[in-house]
This record gives sequence, structure tokens and C-alpha cells, in this order.
Amino acid sequence: MKFEVELKFPVDDLRRVESALAGLGAQVEIPVKQSDFYYGHPSRDFAQTDEALRIRRVGSKSIITYKGPKIDETTKTRREIEVPLVSGSEGAANIIEILDALGFSQVAEVTKNRRKANLTFADQDVEVALDEVKGLGQFVELEISTDEAGVDAARTVINDLAAKLGLSGSERRSYLELILEG
Amino acid sequence: MKFEVELKFPVDDLRRVESALAGLGAQVEIPVKQSDFYYGHPSRDFAQTDEALRIRRVGSKSIITYKGPKIDETTKTRREIEVPLVSGSEGAANIIEILDALGFSQVAEVTKNRRKANLTFADQDVEVALDEVKGLGQFVELEISTDEAGVDAARTVINDLAAKLGLSGSERRSYLELILEG
Repeated sequence: MKFEVELKFPVDDLRRVESALAGLGAQVEIPVKQSDFYYGHPSRDFAQTDEALRIRRVGSKSIITYKGPKIDETTKTRREIEVPLVSGSEGAANIIEILDALGFSQVAEVTKNRRKANLTFADQDVEVALDEVKGLGQFVELEISTDEAGVDAARTVINDLAAKLGLSGSERRSYLELILEG
Repeated sequence: MKFEVELKFPVDDLRRVESALAGLGAQVEIPVKQSDFYYGHPSRDFAQTDEALRIRRVGSKSIITYKGPKIDETTKTRREIEVPLVSGSEGAANIIEILDALGFSQVAEVTKNRRKANLTFADQDVEVALDEVKGLGQFVELEISTDEAGVDAARTVINDLAAKLGLSGSERRSYLELILEG
């Protein structure tokens, strides 16, 4: 089982974080547009159960992702299961048709421009995302993928890296929650 | 929207049908093993609603299929939506994990050796399947994929072809239904 240990911070100026990342040797990639479509369950209130079902489209690629409930109080650590669909728009259109037929309903769309950077920090591979989210503003996400045994260590590394980058005031709510509450 | 117009016949001897197909110029392919895993909905009784959700594995390929209720009284015509997953066993394993997390439960497995044949009959492309189904016996399926406007014409062609192949006593229940009832 795979876990995503993640912290997210709202920021006023992504350029300051970019400089700090450059200082750590990380290269920031060019921006990609991600459109995320979130679905509600036919008989379960995901807002209550803290789950999410998402279809992400990036160019001609689509991926379906289930996110389980957060498993601790401070980070956004949760179980995550991903299934990439065969390339092309038909796969995404058809999975949306299937979800619709099964009684899942689209609840929100989150669109952002994301620039990724990968770095190794304290011997762990960290994925950094610099996000401009439509309707919400600018954010930095720090994430380590790990198995269950590695969750504690990953959490420590993520917190240390955040301090190093001058990030504070983490936002535990997802973009989806922020948009639904906004 | 795509429809599958289909008739299925239990037979004692597939070789007789193979000869008849050869007489019409159709070539029968080598057998492939198909394993179908059927899922129940978390809050809907598919036996009542006449729907099905299936994951089919053929070699390293997996495909997820939703089948809507049958739309007429004689053939097995129904809406069908398919999404192929990225090749490899991980896609199938992960979609099964997602279905499980969403409260879908596996209700049955149908395993068969299928030999396909394609032929053009009365100007329509017909897909023929010669099936040996574990626990059920031998069957022939005749199928035409069409849009909604073509359903009536396809139904006529399928019935004519069945007569031509000496097939009678069609079975309207799915393999899944036959296994669940058996």
C-alpha cells in the first residue's frame, strides 16, 4: 500500500521559493495545466468520510485516483491508488460516462498551472509542486511517496525541508475543500 | 452512445458451428483465456437494475466495462461503455483496489476459453465467439456493435445469421446470471 506524505503552504510569491529550491540544486520544470474533476459517491458522503475520487487530465493523458482518509492530524498523509488510462480523450470521456452511469456525480473542477521540481533532501526523494490554482492563488506542495513503514521518517523530512524553504502556515485542506468552502 | 446487439446459444458441439462458419468464409482465431470479475454496486442491486460492472483480464491487458440494462425483450441489446487500462497487471490490481475502497464487491468470476471469428453478413460486421465456459459448457455468441439508429437492422441480421448457422434456443441470461443461478 502506497502513502503520500504531503504538506502544502499558501505563498504570496512563488519566485522566492523557486530561488530557495535553486539553492538546493533543484530544477523547476515548465508549467503544465492540470484539470481535476472530483466526484461524489452514490451513497457515501466523501466530505464526511474524508475520501476523494478524481479524474486528472493533463494533455491527452488521464489518470483516475482514489484518496483515502487522512491518517494523522498534522500532515495530509493518506492512502492513494492511481490507475492511468490508455492515452487519448476517449478513455477519460468513457470513464466519466461509467462513473455517471454508476451514480457518481461531478462535484467540482480544480484547474491549476503546476510547475514540478524533484530534489533529494536528507536522502529522500521529494516532489515539489509550485501551483497557481484558479480561484485560490499560489501554493507550494511538498510530497514524499512511501510505504507504511516509511511514513514517520518521510514526515520528518518534509517538515525539515519546509523550514529550510522558509515555508510556514501549512494548509491541511485540499484544493477541492478550499474551492467547495470558498 | 454504443450498443451491443447480441444473441447467445448453448450448443452441444462447437465443431459443427465452426464448419458452418467456414462455409461462410469466416476464419476462427486461436483460443484466448478471458477472466471476468464482476462487481456489485455499494447501494444498487445490479440483479434488479440489470446492470453489470466487469473487469476483464486477457493476458496482460485489462479493460473495465459497464453494461446498462437490456433495452428489448428478445436480444441482449444494451448500452456498453469500455475503458482499457494501461497494459500490465498493476492497472488491474489498482482498479480492483479502488473499486474495493469505494464499496464495490466482487460477486463472481467467469472464466472461459474464447475463439473469435469475424465475418461480414448481409453487409454488417458480425463478431462471433465460440466459448467454452468453466462450469457452464459450450456457447456461441453473435454480436454487432452499432449506434442507436442501427439497432433494429442489426437485430434482423443477427437473427438471420443464427438461422443460417442452425442455431436455435437462444439464452438471454448472461454467463454471470447463469453462474449465479447455477
